[in-house]
Amino acid sequence: MLVTSEQLMLFIEEALKKVEVPEKDARTTAESLTMANLRGVDSHGVLRLDTYVKRIQKGLVKANPAIKIEREDNNSAVVDANDALGQVAGNLAMEMAIEKAKANTVGVVLVKGSNHFGTAAHYSMMASRQGLIGIVSSNTTALMPPTGGIGKVLGNNPLSISVPGGSCGEVTVDMAMSNVAMGKVINYSQQNKEIPLGWGVDKDGKDTTNPKEVQNGGFLLPVGGPKGYGLALIVEILTGVLANSLVGKEIKSMYAYEEPQKISHIFMAINVESFIGLNDYNQRVEQLLHYIKNADKVSGVEEIFIPGEIEKRCSEKRAKEGNNLSEELMTELNTLAQELGVEPLKGGN
Amino acid sequence: MLVTSEQLMLFIEEALKKVEVPEKDARTTAESLTMANLRGVDSHGVLRLDTYVKRIQKGLVKANPAIKIEREDNNSAVVDANDALGQVAGNLAMEMAIEKAKANTVGVVLVKGSNHFGTAAHYSMMASRQGLIGIVSSNTTALMPPTGGIGKVLGNNPLSISVPGGSCGEVTVDMAMSNVAMGKVINYSQQNKEIPLGWGVDKDGKDTTNPKEVQNGGFLLPVGGPKGYGLALIVEILTGVLANSLVGKEIKSMYAYEEPQKISHIFMAINVESFIGLNDYNQRVEQLLHYIKNADKVSGVEEIFIPGEIEKRCSEKRAKEGNNLSEELMTELNTLAQELGVEPLKGGN
Repeated sequence: MLVTSEQLMLFIEEALKKVEVPEKDARTTAESLTMANLRGVDSHGVLRLDTYVKRIQKGLVKANPAIKIEREDNNSAVVDANDALGQVAGNLAMEMAIEKAKANTVGVVLVKGSNHFGTAAHYSMMASRQGLIGIVSSNTTALMPPTGGIGKVLGNNPLSISVPGGSCGEVTVDMAMSNVAMGKVINYSQQNKEIPLGWGVDKDGKDTTNPKEVQNGGFLLPVGGPKGYGLALIVEILTGVLANSLVGKEIKSMYAYEEPQKISHIFMAINVESFIGLNDYNQRVEQLLHYIKNADKVSGVEEIFIPGEIEKRCSEKRAKEGNNLSEELMTELNTLAQELGVEPLKGGN
Repeated sequence: MLVTSEQLMLFIEEALKKVEVPEKDARTTAESLTMANLRGVDSHGVLRLDTYVKRIQKGLVKANPAIKIEREDNNSAVVDANDALGQVAGNLAMEMAIEKAKANTVGVVLVKGSNHFGTAAHYSMMASRQGLIGIVSSNTTALMPPTGGIGKVLGNNPLSISVPGGSCGEVTVDMAMSNVAMGKVINYSQQNKEIPLGWGVDKDGKDTTNPKEVQNGGFLLPVGGPKGYGLALIVEILTGVLANSLVGKEIKSMYAYEEPQKISHIFMAINVESFIGLNDYNQRVEQLLHYIKNADKVSGVEEIFIPGEIEKRCSEKRAKEGNNLSEELMTELNTLAQELGVEPLKGGN
């Protein structure tokens, strides 16, 4: 079913307002989820709305949190989100980081006591669209073993970095520290295809090319083995430890509905103009991006993409044509609509 | 042949002094190379000395550069290394970043016009050993294609992050953006073993498990495919572009002896104490590291290592027992010793 971004925005906003989220915060959250759907990152889009609403209804996420700045200086801050929606705390923190970077070259803002904040790219791109470098990360529910280990020990802690790309638009990396998402393993399983070695292990931690063994009690592996494990652990330290909050298994699943998640995020902005004039920067970065685009291609490959370019094209396409939501998701959303008493989402063909 | 660290330090220092490197700079460089050997990162140790010396002799690296601070504010600086040894410029820049972070929470120092700077961990650990977070990266000679591409387009641009680990010592990630180093592919080739898919491609950019096809005109692949490609490109922008210097293929190989390399590095330090008291930090980080060390292990695995722990143990072992240099390397170094007129390196059994 095709749903326009305006319909999606409005629907999310109205649903959140029904559970007492203030209009401004509802809009902030709606923007994050809608932007994810537009960019083709459907796993972080409106799919999450039902869970957000249920967590608010159960008092695990606060619709009206008392967000508090615990510490602050010219270049940094620690924000206690008081169990706010991740997007609400995240937007506030990234704006603080950007203001600090504009005034003093760099801003680093930590958030503790937060929740799922949507795509990390949403925040890093707030910076890059203003001529700054944005670096954003978060800890998450544990789901990967460390190298040599077994079990759900570390989150797949996403990292997004976005930089201005001149007339080419932003260059945006947004990656989880697992080799692939579980969704990709499930896709291979459904197609009865073998997965490459290194994507996941079976329940005993043994390497496997059988996706079903990963699904049934197995685990995803860190990207690049010790590299991804190392980066995931560093993120855990730069978020949960540095914010004096929860780490590893202490963070419960957002689907467990047991207790507040108390996730920590880090937001960093760096002002390009402290290092190089923006005109020079734009000229150099465009040269580099053209050089990459024009590299020789593997036979059969039509185009080399700049990181974030596929998502940008998808966004332009979906802004025109609408967002394709599955019937299953439409049913879930309209059940939610009925429960909350908001106008149901009507899709085109 | 076993060589003590003291012998190694002295030998490197004396060799560099013979090509007019000032004593202090010779020692700085010797410390970086020796530390790499101690930590088991032999690819970045004394193995590089011969090339450093030859580049100085050819005037491609300056023994007495006029290093200049081009821009500076409370939180940042741009340093023109004027073709200094990478270690000389790198040490100066990391010290600047650390001073700025101690005074103002964060310091970001860019270096342009530089050369091979040894292991990135050498600098990130300068920060973590003083209670700061160290983040260091550099562009390098191009050797990887972008995703979908073919040829040597991007460097495997190393990234090191080191954070204090309380009584557990530092946690240090130091990774290149290629899945593995070419040395590892060559090892598999010599043992007639297949390499896992994703390590490299053949000369046409086709996936291969045959290491010989990677060696003979093929290419290393970025770690995690688009993830490693994305990070490598971001590093290229945060170094070469941000410093208004060279990128991609513009940087010639250090073994080409054609022209100055003009590599760029980025050094960042963040003060832990701006976010959390050091006692609280140490307690939390130690808890996290014990939790990781005590995770369930895959059958047959004896121990889970914290990033940097293997290198730390190697360092302690080699400090006692000496550094094992191959006969081939000893011959190369003692040929150099003869050319320069310095005392040859004598190894034990």
